[in-house]
Amino acid sequence: MSSNYTDDSLALHTDLYQINMTESYWADGIHERKAVFELFFRSLPFGNGYAIFAGLERILDYLRDFHFSESDIAYLRDELGFQEDFITYLKDLRFTGDVYSMKEGELVFANEPILRVETTLAEAQLIETALLNIVNFQTLIATKASRIKQVVKDDVVMEFGSRRAHEMDAAVWGARAAVIGGVEATSNVRAGKRFGIPVAGTHAHSMVQAYKSEYEAFHSYAKRHKDCVFLVDTYNTLKIGIPTAIQVAKELGDKINFVGIRLDSGDISFLSKEARRMLDAAGFTNTKIVVSNDLDEYTILNLKAQGAKVDTWGIGTKLITAYDQPALGAVYKIVAIENENGEMEDTIKISSNVEKVTTPGQKKLYRIIDRENGKAEGDYITMHDEDPTAEKRIKMFHPVHTFISKFVTNFDAIDLHTKVVEKGEVIYTNPPLNEMREYAHENLNLLWDEYKRSLNPEEYPVDLSQKCWDNKMRNIREVQEMVDEYSMK
Amino acid sequence: MSSNYTDDSLALHTDLYQINMTESYWADGIHERKAVFELFFRSLPFGNGYAIFAGLERILDYLRDFHFSESDIAYLRDELGFQEDFITYLKDLRFTGDVYSMKEGELVFANEPILRVETTLAEAQLIETALLNIVNFQTLIATKASRIKQVVKDDVVMEFGSRRAHEMDAAVWGARAAVIGGVEATSNVRAGKRFGIPVAGTHAHSMVQAYKSEYEAFHSYAKRHKDCVFLVDTYNTLKIGIPTAIQVAKELGDKINFVGIRLDSGDISFLSKEARRMLDAAGFTNTKIVVSNDLDEYTILNLKAQGAKVDTWGIGTKLITAYDQPALGAVYKIVAIENENGEMEDTIKISSNVEKVTTPGQKKLYRIIDRENGKAEGDYITMHDEDPTAEKRIKMFHPVHTFISKFVTNFDAIDLHTKVVEKGEVIYTNPPLNEMREYAHENLNLLWDEYKRSLNPEEYPVDLSQKCWDNKMRNIREVQEMVDEYSMK
Repeated sequence: MSSNYTDDSLALHTDLYQINMTESYWADGIHERKAVFELFFRSLPFGNGYAIFAGLERILDYLRDFHFSESDIAYLRDELGFQEDFITYLKDLRFTGDVYSMKEGELVFANEPILRVETTLAEAQLIETALLNIVNFQTLIATKASRIKQVVKDDVVMEFGSRRAHEMDAAVWGARAAVIGGVEATSNVRAGKRFGIPVAGTHAHSMVQAYKSEYEAFHSYAKRHKDCVFLVDTYNTLKIGIPTAIQVAKELGDKINFVGIRLDSGDISFLSKEARRMLDAAGFTNTKIVVSNDLDEYTILNLKAQGAKVDTWGIGTKLITAYDQPALGAVYKIVAIENENGEMEDTIKISSNVEKVTTPGQKKLYRIIDRENGKAEGDYITMHDEDPTAEKRIKMFHPVHTFISKFVTNFDAIDLHTKVVEKGEVIYTNPPLNEMREYAHENLNLLWDEYKRSLNPEEYPVDLSQKCWDNKMRNIREVQEMVDEYSMK
Repeated sequence: MSSNYTDDSLALHTDLYQINMTESYWADGIHERKAVFELFFRSLPFGNGYAIFAGLERILDYLRDFHFSESDIAYLRDELGFQEDFITYLKDLRFTGDVYSMKEGELVFANEPILRVETTLAEAQLIETALLNIVNFQTLIATKASRIKQVVKDDVVMEFGSRRAHEMDAAVWGARAAVIGGVEATSNVRAGKRFGIPVAGTHAHSMVQAYKSEYEAFHSYAKRHKDCVFLVDTYNTLKIGIPTAIQVAKELGDKINFVGIRLDSGDISFLSKEARRMLDAAGFTNTKIVVSNDLDEYTILNLKAQGAKVDTWGIGTKLITAYDQPALGAVYKIVAIENENGEMEDTIKISSNVEKVTTPGQKKLYRIIDRENGKAEGDYITMHDEDPTAEKRIKMFHPVHTFISKFVTNFDAIDLHTKVVEKGEVIYTNPPLNEMREYAHENLNLLWDEYKRSLNPEEYPVDLSQKCWDNKMRNIREVQEMVDEYSMK
């Protein structure tokens, strides 16, 4: 059961059924029919009022490099028994289609397409698993980071979770996603190197233990580091930790910047207030208090309500694992396929779970902005041949409770999709990471506060155009007729 | 904020503070002092009675390759401002120490060392983050898989979670860990290729949609695949899905093996029973029922209690993300360090959270097996110079409630650690993956059923030897005296 294959390309980072289906399409000669797939999730994570899209960069890297390596082909043939004719086809396969995507940092809501893939049926199928794997995780973490940022407001947040992340990719891509969501820095040096994220960190308990005393350890640290944040809870925070930090800072005077102390255990509310009092009394009024101990937005909200004196929050486990909801359920569904006459036809999946019924057809997605107040009125999904930017007035209605409706006038309709891949070529370059964070931040200003509350926010409208709705109903009826006809035979 | 560095070695997969501390050790000339670190967690995940260790293979790969690349050095100098003298030292650094580890598939409990690292202070510090990142995730998933396997008993379990995994490493290493925990197959083809795991899967809803009918899609699938599992819930499971699967199977007769049908939505209990009835009535009594829809051990237990007719369980999100507890809290603590005279001295970390106080000193870990019934009596932690295998009778007592004690006689004491790295050289070769799964399975036979209950299991004893306990108390007293002395100054 161990591997003979040393290289490790990503084309096989897919579920086996994708390859099985592709084989059938290929055998039937329909593998190069044009298909349209949409990637979306059905409900927002954490009960939040919005999500923040992240993952595009990794997707573009993946599509650019998409190919089956020699050893992938060998594995498919020798171990899985795929036949030579089919794997010969796979050998030369590259991604040749178009991808329309939101930008990273874009606000995204339930049931709206984040990405639209228009390519051959075979290619669209083979890339599904990797796309979902990337978007589900990165969007989840960017959203979690944004929730935390909403609560800390202007305090600094640092991502400290590598040791609890789900293996290595999650640590580094998670750090990047957290930055898009609003975090200022990470402790992971590799993420810093790969993505240009500021890295942060000073020392751990083990250093104090290695020197057997805080006094020795702080002095040693200060010898090589001008900016000092001393960790004060190895033995006893108030009795020896903070007093020693103050003592060392006084002894060293201008030789260091006594930037802060870090608390990593005990009652943060009580200890931070005591720490602030002790630091102020010693004249270190600008020295910051950094805390890190199993924190998330719920704990932070409570600590702030109690007046905890914290300047910087180091967030580990709860952010990098999205602890309270560790999976986003984005799916990737076929909405249209070319028929034997070269025309595009809609497809639909019906389910006894109503919310799992897909919305058929090639569609577009607009954010409707009220020109008077600059706020978002909702998102608006149309068929691909509609153009709300040319309309003076649009009717928006709730996609489940259709009697809830409103007319919107004097609006801008912003197309949320950018063509990022054209005929297989990546034509989009991501802006620098800090610009994406800024973009997310600006997008949040478009939302009324009611949508940004961390608990029980209002539901932001994501509505179908009348044409889109009518088309969906027609498709449902057609399937129902087919099912009824079959079952009456 | 974007990267100029194209290569991506793993030496920087660490928290910045590890490098900061290493710099101080180096500057003080204590970086090559011998240090002993232990890796352990403080409480079992999921309220389970045991955990299953996984992650050693990845750790050995990491240690074998450990070095700072040219571009790592450039990044540390140019972006993070580390000084030339120190990074010159890092340039040639390799891992040169010894590692003692449990085998993958070993049962592990709270507060016992999974791994013990004995090397220079600098090296031990730099590898901490990566070791925790690996062990925390892989052990979590192996344990979750084992919980699921306890509930399904002899049914087959397949890992289907790639699309919801936390980025790509989690998908493939998670699939591997799930196999160690008891899972039979994965849908991830790359994991199959890398680790020799059996891969499984047939087709998705999109195939039915692409062909516009189940009849066409099933026939197409059968053309290239002898073994057929048909997905029957694209439109309506009972009215058209299962009847079509039966129709196609009858039409094709011996040309295919009608292995199964798959249900992916709706009420699994009801649908599986109806499906079994319909398949049996059509003469397909050997055709299996595969289900997959947000399942975990709790749902499975309930479905089985209702008599659901399921043969194979495809587990996605809840397994690969360890949904109900997505982080294991393993830590890595220094327990001893060489002093200026070349002698090893114990170290301890005190905390106001009692369970965070470490157990100082170089220690060993034994599993105590009752020779009469072959069952494990508990695990026993000793100082490194004790040898319980030479004892006729040992006293085991609870490490918190010390008055709970028992004498054990007629036992085997099994040393749970194997030397896997010696002087930096990996000297251990993992057995094939299926042997590790078998090893985990056999280990579970050592445990009384009371420890294996998925809800509220009995607590398995992990006890300190008297000498180990006395040593811990002495170390605590010494720190308390130091703190008191300081605070009275």
